Amino acid sequence: MASFVRTVPEGEDRERLTCADCGFIAYENPKIVVGSVVGVGERVLLCRRAIEPRRGFWTLPAGYMEMAETVEEGARREAWEEAQARIAIEGVLAIYSIARIGQVQVIFRAGLAEPGFAPGPESLDVRLFGWEEIPWGEIAFPSVHWALRQWREAAGRPLGLPAMNPPEDVRGTRPLPGDGL
Amino acid sequence: MASFVRTVPEGEDRERLTCADCGFIAYENPKIVVGSVVGVGERVLLCRRAIEPRRGFWTLPAGYMEMAETVEEGARREAWEEAQARIAIEGVLAIYSIARIGQVQVIFRAGLAEPGFAPGPESLDVRLFGWEEIPWGEIAFPSVHWALRQWREAAGRPLGLPAMNPPEDVRGTRPLPGDGL
Ligand SMILES: [Zn+2]
Ligand SMILES: [Zn+2]
Repeated sequence: MASFVRTVPEGEDRERLTCADCGFIAYENPKIVVGSVVGVGERVLLCRRAIEPRRGFWTLPAGYMEMAETVEEGARREAWEEAQARIAIEGVLAIYSIARIGQVQVIFRAGLAEPGFAPGPESLDVRLFGWEEIPWGEIAFPSVHWALRQWREAAGRPLGLPAMNPPEDVRGTRPLPGDGL
Repeated sequence: MASFVRTVPEGEDRERLTCADCGFIAYENPKIVVGSVVGVGERVLLCRRAIEPRRGFWTLPAGYMEMAETVEEGARREAWEEAQARIAIEGVLAIYSIARIGQVQVIFRAGLAEPGFAPGPESLDVRLFGWEEIPWGEIAFPSVHWALRQWREAAGRPLGLPAMNPPEDVRGTRPLPGDGL
């Protein structure tokens, strides 16, 4: 097993995760999450997570972008994997930075390109919710709240400049509710 | 030294770079580049690269986002590091996917927050160019062309939906001119 230590490599200005055995430097870069708020009429598609963290909580179809795909392709792949949905992307709704964990989320506004959806292997359930029906107490992550709110605000209007982090968490550094308490 | 091989780890669906010595899986994730088109009146700020690749060519102040920063903070840090410029960000101008190398570029439109700029350690020169003065034959990367064109198109107008890849390279898979010839 690799044992990693934090040291400042020669010629660099900050600590990097380095393998004590072989010297490999595991550069930690922010990761990109791609996802979408999929609207069907006035309802929005949410997935109930089958995996940790936040198993059983509701989220957007979203996940880590892979190499060799574009942001749009990543968002379509995730919608397929998690909700067995073929989506039609309209444009970027929001870009959130979650500095606490080194993450950037590119969230699109989308519709269904074909009717139909179903839970993929990482979802327990997939459903359409009217705004008043959304299970607000069982939403997986703060950024899902942010994106849903943004989607609601932009409803019926052409997309403009994407939203960035909301004022209550401009750097994405707030701990998740229930974490570390 | 670490020797890495490509294998499909148990329970995964694609090849990952794995250390043959210690089993460490070096997940390759797309990297995020943050940068900005910094306008001063009708002129635009460009940096002449002091480092490879494309040493001597002109580029935007941009670079890899670090952990624990937001996209805006990353763009401001890069403008400082490469052009010793304090910038004021207006909003997202463009989001480019470069699938060929697993990269996402978040490019802002910005101005100078304070007067003054100078080459940082990774730049040979920093200058303001009028549109007709831009050294088009010595631009470092295609996405710099794209961003400059987008900046020009949006000049004098409020920012709207960010531009994505242009039609000539929708996935960012075209080889760089001069590469692999
Ligand atoms: Zn090792
Ligand atoms: Zn190793």
